[in-house]
Amino acid sequence: MKTIAILGSTGSIGTQTLDVVRQHPERFTVFMISANNNAALLVEQALSFHVPHVVICNPEKYGEVRSALPASVQVHQGIGAACDLVQAPEVDVVVAAMVGFSGLKPTLSAIRAGKTIALANKETLVAAGSLVMGEARRSGACIYPVDSEHSAIFQCLSGAQGNPVERIHLTASGGPFRTWSQAQIASARKEDALKHPNWEMGAKITIDSATMMNKGFEVIEAKWLFDVPVEKIHVVVHPESIIHSMVEFADGAVIAQLGMPDMRVPIALALSWPERLPLDGKRLNFSDLKGLSFFEPDREKFPCLQLAFDALAAGGNIPCAMNAANEYAVAAFLRGAIGLYDIPRCIDFVMGHVDYIANPSLDDVFVTHAVAANKAENYLLGV
Amino acid sequence: MKTIAILGSTGSIGTQTLDVVRQHPERFTVFMISANNNAALLVEQALSFHVPHVVICNPEKYGEVRSALPASVQVHQGIGAACDLVQAPEVDVVVAAMVGFSGLKPTLSAIRAGKTIALANKETLVAAGSLVMGEARRSGACIYPVDSEHSAIFQCLSGAQGNPVERIHLTASGGPFRTWSQAQIASARKEDALKHPNWEMGAKITIDSATMMNKGFEVIEAKWLFDVPVEKIHVVVHPESIIHSMVEFADGAVIAQLGMPDMRVPIALALSWPERLPLDGKRLNFSDLKGLSFFEPDREKFPCLQLAFDALAAGGNIPCAMNAANEYAVAAFLRGAIGLYDIPRCIDFVMGHVDYIANPSLDDVFVTHAVAANKAENYLLGV
Repeated sequence: MKTIAILGSTGSIGTQTLDVVRQHPERFTVFMISANNNAALLVEQALSFHVPHVVICNPEKYGEVRSALPASVQVHQGIGAACDLVQAPEVDVVVAAMVGFSGLKPTLSAIRAGKTIALANKETLVAAGSLVMGEARRSGACIYPVDSEHSAIFQCLSGAQGNPVERIHLTASGGPFRTWSQAQIASARKEDALKHPNWEMGAKITIDSATMMNKGFEVIEAKWLFDVPVEKIHVVVHPESIIHSMVEFADGAVIAQLGMPDMRVPIALALSWPERLPLDGKRLNFSDLKGLSFFEPDREKFPCLQLAFDALAAGGNIPCAMNAANEYAVAAFLRGAIGLYDIPRCIDFVMGHVDYIANPSLDDVFVTHAVAANKAENYLLGV
Repeated sequence: MKTIAILGSTGSIGTQTLDVVRQHPERFTVFMISANNNAALLVEQALSFHVPHVVICNPEKYGEVRSALPASVQVHQGIGAACDLVQAPEVDVVVAAMVGFSGLKPTLSAIRAGKTIALANKETLVAAGSLVMGEARRSGACIYPVDSEHSAIFQCLSGAQGNPVERIHLTASGGPFRTWSQAQIASARKEDALKHPNWEMGAKITIDSATMMNKGFEVIEAKWLFDVPVEKIHVVVHPESIIHSMVEFADGAVIAQLGMPDMRVPIALALSWPERLPLDGKRLNFSDLKGLSFFEPDREKFPCLQLAFDALAAGGNIPCAMNAANEYAVAAFLRGAIGLYDIPRCIDFVMGHVDYIANPSLDDVFVTHAVAANKAENYLLGV
């Protein structure tokens, strides 16, 4: 029996994590769930899964959650409570599924306590990869990826037998605008960008997929998770999202992981590795596949992807600044305040206007995030 | 430094094995090579690779080989010499690359001596799988597959972490007649059948690929190598031969091995596992791929595939009889004596007319082979 804590339980990854728990009640018990705003779902989850600790981050929702739950359930308020609870001795695995930079603090807290991390919050590694991996090495925390791509790479590497990686082929669906022209993308509406062809996800990551910023984040995440230099990471557009990523070795052999797009597979894997649990998802039926195709990504149509490579090459606090600018710009796009290409323009501006810090401390990361968000705000006011 | 012996050095697998040796002279030395008939190439190989022991099986060619080589090279005659030499204490790995049933004796000899086997001769496992695997268990011999499909499965399983296999997806190119009608296949000529779309191989295996008997053999081989029941082995036609085979687990995750069709990858892997050696072959370039497609095999157009499943279900000495009938019928087809569909007709007849032995001894296997070949000969005289 493993005891889990879920940071961001009401989001897409959080709810799917609970679906895995529902399929394997003999394996998992939930110690803590946290949400930002969705009080109603949080309450429902707490009751269904008999969760003893519930954290609501938005203080305005505390009363609603508290009154809906029996006194036996401890209801906490604010992100600080989540940071404390993930360190509780009862907790074995922490599912880090908060959205954006806000996931960094509680995830780091869990890592420092040496917990096993099921990491869905990629912004944690984008903003502070070196620091986070350093803390994990110190504490001995295992970080298992809950991205379909990184989980695939992890699975492919599990049979590497010590052979060095020659190349990682990170697959990308290409998002909803893969076949659109640059002009069409320039006038894309929020509704268009939210229509991901293969995956149902939260709004932030869906926009990141539409701009391919998400793939850029994943390149950075892969670098940190697998300790592979950026030159060895190759992004390949694979619109069917059946091959979830691949690893190539010195002899030319490529190992791949395939499956129907279903996040419960990487979630369950991160919760129970090295054991694979039976899951009730749809299976791949090869003769149903209409064919698998592959393309090089178009970095002109998707400048965010190039910006991520640039940020990684620049290093230091630049990926953190990129992430902050993106977070701010995506929120503005979702409000309808800016166009899709204003996102990379804003990121590019911010990356060029933050003070460079080669080896940022954690404080530097938080300052960079705040400064970059502020610069993004000012830039976008002028759009 | 590993010392290797090559049974069938002048064939397709043998020559490609020597190409791997040529690329890694610091890793491998060749102790013995054997060939059936190709004296000229055998002599050339002996000289190039400074091989101390050379076996020519056809006694009529002995003089030619002996006179062409210096006295320091020991030249032996007949399959018995090969059986002895593979047991020499110097030998680490035996590449079993003879064609057909004739490979059984020397391969078994190497297995009994506990040598590591790079197994390309699949007929060995088709005819005597239970016996061969039993001997390997007793002697501790490791058997590494040198089929692209089985090597792929082996690679996929190397990261299984003890998780049971739910399904093996054995890929098949479909051969040169994949898109032909049954009527067209019925009148196919030898030249048509020898045109394999993706792989350059010897004549026997190329005809086996055209009838899909080869895939049937591979199903049987997979059952023995990976101890997986036939219900868990799924043949999927994949005309591009880029995915070399796949393994599916309980969570729905599928692990695959991909690469350009190049037998030197599985050969090198079998010689040096768990290490992967750099090879100079062509690499997969995903954006060059025109798309990967998948189909269910047509067992009516390719009755040999169904016969292999039937033989496996019948068990005992029936796969051995099937193999013998196939070997005889393929030789007749290559002589131009019969049509392509006479091959499955002959196999079907022979499988129905040998005495069933549930647990054949090695003697039973040899008798079954001889009896079945004789029945095949008689059947084909009537065609």
